[in-house]
Amino acid sequence: MEYKTNPVGNEISCVFHNVSNEILNNHRLIKGSLIEALKKEGFTILDISSHEFSPQGFSFCALIAESHATIHTYPEYNSLAFHLYSCRSPNDGQIVLKHLKEKLKPERIKLATKKVIVDPNFKT
Amino acid sequence: MEYKTNPVGNEISCVFHNVSNEILNNHRLIKGSLIEALKKEGFTILDISSHEFSPQGFSFCALIAESHATIHTYPEYNSLAFHLYSCRSPNDGQIVLKHLKEKLKPERIKLATKKVIVDPNFKT
Repeated sequence: MEYKTNPVGNEISCVFHNVSNEILNNHRLIKGSLIEALKKEGFTILDISSHEFSPQGFSFCALIAESHATIHTYPEYNSLAFHLYSCRSPNDGQIVLKHLKEKLKPERIKLATKKVIVDPNFKT
Repeated sequence: MEYKTNPVGNEISCVFHNVSNEILNNHRLIKGSLIEALKKEGFTILDISSHEFSPQGFSFCALIAESHATIHTYPEYNSLAFHLYSCRSPNDGQIVLKHLKEKLKPERIKLATKKVIVDPNFKT
């Protein structure tokens, strides 16, 4: 086989806290911001799924050629969860995260990143 | 607002190593196994996206009412990455993981789980 994915990918798991209700209930803005952010970092969007919950809450999931990115909102806590996993490179996702912070304006964020090693022979 | 999500959800990030090529190239089995697993744990599937890469590799993403679950395969490394995030309860995903292990038969797995706190006032 000639094609090989990078042996190490990156995962971002993040909660945005103190996001305004105006932004959290603007599903078009959230969806548009994530799509813009993904394009800005050169990710290729293959498919998107979304769901508006009753009485509130919005989920958005983008399948990308480099893996996936998701947002789930929690207006009852003024928060949202953002996840991204990219198997393209071990530092991926920082441009997406920066763009989302600018657009969705959380007062603080709880961020965790993790390398994902898919090659069993890769030595860290 | 009366409806409130659980203040704490759970995230599973897992790589299955040494999965057989027969299984990794059986996209129907992988997709079916994750759907079965999600139903077994009582998750509600809202939408699914998938993509078959050339010359190899398969991505599958399920948007669920409780958040999302994904699988990305790497036949070149005999591995796959499985992610699940559920905002329903802080112990979610174990039944899904067990079912996937039974069906996809990795020789070993690299597993990380993490609580995701969406309520800024929740005390651990």
